[in-house]
Parts: sequence; structure tokens; C-alpha cells
Amino acid sequence: MGHGDIDQLITMLARLPGLGPRSARRAALALLRQPESRMLPLAHLMERAATSVKTCTQCGNLDTVDPCHICTDTARDQGLICVVETVGDLWALERAGVHRGVYQVLGGTLSALAGLGPDDLNVRPLFERIEEGGVREVILALSATVEGATTAHWLQERLLPTGVSVTRVGHGVPMGGALDVLDDGTLAAALTARRSL
Amino acid sequence: MGHGDIDQLITMLARLPGLGPRSARRAALALLRQPESRMLPLAHLMERAATSVKTCTQCGNLDTVDPCHICTDTARDQGLICVVETVGDLWALERAGVHRGVYQVLGGTLSALAGLGPDDLNVRPLFERIEEGGVREVILALSATVEGATTAHWLQERLLPTGVSVTRVGHGVPMGGALDVLDDGTLAAALTARRSL
Repeated sequence: MGHGDIDQLITMLARLPGLGPRSARRAALALLRQPESRMLPLAHLMERAATSVKTCTQCGNLDTVDPCHICTDTARDQGLICVVETVGDLWALERAGVHRGVYQVLGGTLSALAGLGPDDLNVRPLFERIEEGGVREVILALSATVEGATTAHWLQERLLPTGVSVTRVGHGVPMGGALDVLDDGTLAAALTARRSL
Repeated sequence: MGHGDIDQLITMLARLPGLGPRSARRAALALLRQPESRMLPLAHLMERAATSVKTCTQCGNLDTVDPCHICTDTARDQGLICVVETVGDLWALERAGVHRGVYQVLGGTLSALAGLGPDDLNVRPLFERIEEGGVREVILALSATVEGATTAHWLQERLLPTGVSVTRVGHGVPMGGALDVLDDGTLAAALTARRSL
């Protein structure tokens, strides 16, 4: 019954991160009030995005082109690779506009708890790019968590033999804090204060 | 460019009530990570709801059937009509499960500021139902705001000649508070403590 459609809409919206039952109801009501001008355009956009957006095989970014617009941007320093955990972290750095190089999105961190090992991280493309040459520096921009530190240490050891200079974001990243909650200034400071390992 | 699709998705989500730029980004990322299992189903549901959900010509509720499932529910007291401002208020009362009658959704309140007059309120169906007979009581469940009080007073005067008993929700509705932010207990108390005008 139609009533079910509305309940289902509220339920699905409430499952999204950042929304609770209350905000999901408010959002659903706003959409239902403007089905033509608001709900359908969003539905069609989501439908298009679901099929058009793919993961960049080089860096792990989300885009409708593969390789993504960042990897193919000749204006960016392809020799400077910033390693982040998630696409959300990449978005945060892009919003801050503090990184002139490219990225490598791991898709997570090493985590015994979550049972995530080296094979679960998207690192192969990084080492392939290094082998191809032209990579001068790898910046580790990982969260200041136990998992982030573990992952940084593991990557550092694997990168050592390549001779590429490895740095990590320094001051600015609060302990226990995730990268994508930081303001632009803090992200800029963290990148600027990066130090050699 | 595809990058634009993602930005547009975040922008449209951020425009929804209850979502800010941050929660919109988190929601968009969650959807983009599961295009098949999460984004497409939501898109299709919204597409279906946009076309299936309509406004009940009798009470103003949102449903895929017209008259809505509440208006056609023979188990409910069709002689007891609860007047609310918005569908959100109706939802709040239904969640509380404290009203055994039916509803009339005004779609707003009289407001000089918003330039909303009697003609902008969905009241004709209410008086038609009263003229048809069988309506014993009209409960005014409007927000305890200046607009709500003005609307209640205006409705009371228009209902007086019909001889129908008019009540309004009593204790429980905090001054300046909107109805749909109240907990079930408060809503129950407000309905129980309704008094004759």
C-alpha cells in the first residue's frame, strides 16, 4: 500500500549516515511536497550517478571518468602522491585546496579488529606508479588513529626500498581525529609541516 | 563532467531540511559506495513515490490512495476530526497513536507575515464533511504560536454556527513549540486534556 512507500522512503533516508529518524522524516516530507520539482530530479540524478560514477583504477577516487579528472590533470604534480584512507579524505583535501599533487585512496586502514590486511588496501597502483618512475614523494595523510599509524608504518617499510621520499602530514592532525573533519587551515598546516620519516 | 554529478548530488542533498553540507557529503559518499545496493533502490523508490503519492482530497494527508487509508478506515471514528497544520503533525499524532478519529490538514496557518489568508488553508473539505452530517467533534491540534492561535480562533468562529463541538488540545503543547517535535506522552496528554471552547 502507498502508505508503505512513504514509510520505506523515511526508513531508507534514516539509514544514511548523518540522518536520524527526525531529519529523515523532514527530508521525506520536503521531497513529497515537491514531487516534480524536487523528488524526481534527485531520483534521476541518483540514477545517473549510480551508473556513471566509477572508481578510478589508478588512485581509487570516485568519478565518472577513469582515470579520474585528478589523475589526468596535467596541471597537477604527478610526482607528488598523497595517500589517504577514504574518498571523503580526498574530498576534504580538495576542498582545502592545499594539495597540488595526486592521490592514492587506500579504501581503509590495516585493522586486526576489522580483519583488514594488506591485500584489502588499494596500494598496488601506488607501487606500479613508483616502478614506472617519476614519483618523487609520497605523503601519508592518514588519520591519527592506531590503525592509521599502523598503516603508515607498514607503508613506510614497503616504500623504503623504492628510494622514494616518504613524508607524513605533521602538526594539525589531532590525536584520534579523522582527517575529513578538519578545517582547511588545519589541513594546510598539516601538509606544510610534513616531515621526512 | 562526472565530477559535476557528485557535486550536484551533494548540493541537492544539502538542500534537504535536516541535512547540512557535512551530512550531505557523508550521505552522498555512502550512496556512491553502494550504487547498486543502495543508491539505485533509493532512486527507484523516490521515482515511484513521486508519481504514486498524492494529496488526499478529503483530509489533505499524503498517500498513494485518494481518499487516504485513514479517511477510509472504518475502524476509525469518522465523527471525530483532528485539525492539524501539516502532514508532519499528522505523522506525529499517528506515531503517538493517540487519535482514534480522522484528520483535516490545513497545510499551514493564517499568517499576515507569510501573506496566508483563509483561502490558502485547506478547510473546505472540513465544512463539507460537517454539512454532510455525522461529525460530532472537531479537535484543533494547532501549534501554540501566534499564527496557530489566530487560526484556531478563526476556525472556532467559523465552526460555531455548525453546532459541532469544537475542542483544542490542552496541556502539553509548550508555548512557541511546534506539534511534531513533541514526544508521544505529551501528545497523549494534550489530546486527553482537550477542553471545550
